[in-house]
Amino acid sequence: MMRIIAGSEFKLEREVDAGTTEQLNAVLNIVQRVRLEGDEALFHFTRLHDKTEVTTGNIRVTAEDIARAYELVEPSFLEAIREAAQRIRTFHEKQKRASWFDIQPDGTMLGQLLRPLRRVGVYVPGGKAAYPSSVLMNVIPAQVAGVKEIVMVTPPSTGGKQGIDPYILVVAAEAGVEEIYRVGGAQAIAALAYGTDSIAKVDKICGPGNIFVALAKREVYGAVDIDSIAGPSEIVVLADETAHASYIAADLLSQAEHDEMASAVLVTTSRAVAEAVQQEVEQQLTVLPRQSIASQSIEQYGAIVVTDSMQEAIALINRLAPEHLEIMTEDPMNELSLVENAGAIFLGNYSSEPVGDYFAGPNHIIPTNGTARFSSPVDVDMFVKKSSLIRYSKEALFAQGETIMKLARHEGLEGHAKAIQVRLEQEKDNDTK
Amino acid sequence: MMRIIAGSEFKLEREVDAGTTEQLNAVLNIVQRVRLEGDEALFHFTRLHDKTEVTTGNIRVTAEDIARAYELVEPSFLEAIREAAQRIRTFHEKQKRASWFDIQPDGTMLGQLLRPLRRVGVYVPGGKAAYPSSVLMNVIPAQVAGVKEIVMVTPPSTGGKQGIDPYILVVAAEAGVEEIYRVGGAQAIAALAYGTDSIAKVDKICGPGNIFVALAKREVYGAVDIDSIAGPSEIVVLADETAHASYIAADLLSQAEHDEMASAVLVTTSRAVAEAVQQEVEQQLTVLPRQSIASQSIEQYGAIVVTDSMQEAIALINRLAPEHLEIMTEDPMNELSLVENAGAIFLGNYSSEPVGDYFAGPNHIIPTNGTARFSSPVDVDMFVKKSSLIRYSKEALFAQGETIMKLARHEGLEGHAKAIQVRLEQEKDNDTK
Repeated sequence: MMRIIAGSEFKLEREVDAGTTEQLNAVLNIVQRVRLEGDEALFHFTRLHDKTEVTTGNIRVTAEDIARAYELVEPSFLEAIREAAQRIRTFHEKQKRASWFDIQPDGTMLGQLLRPLRRVGVYVPGGKAAYPSSVLMNVIPAQVAGVKEIVMVTPPSTGGKQGIDPYILVVAAEAGVEEIYRVGGAQAIAALAYGTDSIAKVDKICGPGNIFVALAKREVYGAVDIDSIAGPSEIVVLADETAHASYIAADLLSQAEHDEMASAVLVTTSRAVAEAVQQEVEQQLTVLPRQSIASQSIEQYGAIVVTDSMQEAIALINRLAPEHLEIMTEDPMNELSLVENAGAIFLGNYSSEPVGDYFAGPNHIIPTNGTARFSSPVDVDMFVKKSSLIRYSKEALFAQGETIMKLARHEGLEGHAKAIQVRLEQEKDNDTK
Repeated sequence: MMRIIAGSEFKLEREVDAGTTEQLNAVLNIVQRVRLEGDEALFHFTRLHDKTEVTTGNIRVTAEDIARAYELVEPSFLEAIREAAQRIRTFHEKQKRASWFDIQPDGTMLGQLLRPLRRVGVYVPGGKAAYPSSVLMNVIPAQVAGVKEIVMVTPPSTGGKQGIDPYILVVAAEAGVEEIYRVGGAQAIAALAYGTDSIAKVDKICGPGNIFVALAKREVYGAVDIDSIAGPSEIVVLADETAHASYIAADLLSQAEHDEMASAVLVTTSRAVAEAVQQEVEQQLTVLPRQSIASQSIEQYGAIVVTDSMQEAIALINRLAPEHLEIMTEDPMNELSLVENAGAIFLGNYSSEPVGDYFAGPNHIIPTNGTARFSSPVDVDMFVKKSSLIRYSKEALFAQGETIMKLARHEGLEGHAKAIQVRLEQEKDNDTK
């Protein structure tokens, strides 16, 4: 039974898996060896951990592999994925920004140059964790940003099954990824970060993975950029007395079925809604195929929180900073204006969270575990780098030179002052000649 | 003597200080204790490391402290800082972006809500490392982003000197920072990250510091956001035969004087310029107050690289991805179009790099050590978080529901499909009643 508690009683505490010392040491060894030995180590660890003989000749997925995958995928899936990709692309296109600059009458030009990263690596986990939708959510923002080279790595086998899931290959192909390698784990991350003969190094690595992948990403960070490391998923539903209990229960369970660590929380000002949702969850759980996972999640990290006021409810939400927030109130725009922290916000009765998981367009990779306080869903900006542009004219330098030298000298940096002075003096010499 | 070498010979390899095990253990202990014990531990470590008795009563800098600092600062410095602050603010204002949304005829609304972080902590190191300009470069972008609470921490003493540098206090006051605490080191970082009775916790910590500060920032990352951890500074000057050797030499030295680990590199297609710069550097070094630092930097990490072509020169620059790049060629816009990786780019003979350090407007906190390949100078975006907005109408959900369920079921997530189904069914029931 989902517990009903008061706002003051609720805390969400989940320890995120930080890996054991043994796992960390294993990862450090793999990363170090791939960095130093390249392909030899990459192939070795693939043989060891994926029980697959990968060579220079067969590491890359071929056009024939892709063609075969297309034959295994039903047309209706393909159609759905194409429509989803189109919507995701349309949403992310709106995030694109242009370089800009500003020229002053004295000839000063200042600006910001925005350019895509050159080469990005997307990690796709094997087996059940391989969600076609996640491929779209990582690849499309990078493409929209203008990244020319997007390379994918994915394990050549998982849980005894050989080969890459044909759905993943088809979705990659649909998204336009043409460079796919049959390697996974920490060794694949190291190859992307440092490069080997088979795989050229990238500028950024993104995509989810198991604890070995997460630890390897942390280790190579600095040599390349990485995306954030996702924790377990969570949803908070904010409801008043007008909300539908059956919708809320279904949405809570859709989150809870993800994994035992997932958290599904209802925050409501209505005790009647609280009790109705509690009953609905019980009922709906009975017919859920992933019932065992969902009920563990509900038991451990789920709660129905009844607050005395909407104000208290929103204060709790801002403290939790949930990955997903659904607002099911009479006029959701009222509450929206007060919500400060939430990764993705779903408004009204028809905006069920799974709508955002697959199809609506916004990214489904969203900050978890309270980090929406300071971070954001994956977007085009994450695949763009900026350079400042500074052009001073002679006139501008002469007008501002003394002030700049004053500031430099205050900081004890005479060499900085001299770099200005040498110009002022030389030009004065030229003028009198 | 600055070495002259060929493009193929040049490599820039600097080991960034990652701290010793002893330092790391000391930091872990401090962070853990401040997290658990709050002020008690914060005051304890301040007593231990800064030899200063800090209490609840005196930890915060008062209005009187600020007023006294103003008396110690000469009016011309104040004037220069005010002008710099104004320019920096004007530049960063241009980076601001609005939230946006898009409404479709079927009632679907999708958008992105952009909002400032609520509370940001700025670390300002003590002693010689306290640059007034760095205060402006961290505080102003946060303010422009709309951050309401900006809090500063800085050690109460350094190198035997008691009290905070009056220049730092005045610059902070000028920038509009009203909450300043007299604590530094790992203990200050932990207090910002987890909060104590005296210091409320923040959402992001930025600003430079020594190795203990850097290790503490790494440790608290996740509980709060942090800025990137800066490595030693670097400049690359790209020059053709039209460049002035004396300007180039002065600019190289202005970088080299920062610290022994700094790197100053000239890349040129002209052997004549290479030799002239070599001579100029020798000459200008003799009158530089920070000669010892600059010559060590030049010796270890400096180089004059002569390339066979402009193409080779630019390929080298893109590989180095320098923090600062000066382009002194006949028409710098030509080369600019080919440069892919550089943090800040200075165009032409009058855009000496120190112009950007203090005054021009763009941020002087710029990715170092090749990370300009994938990261960017500090800007307003770094103090903004985004939320996705999703509102589906009944019409839209009915039109797309089947496709969304198909994708959910493909991923084995029946609960996701059911969250859609429950709405479609209930509404059908309503329609037939």
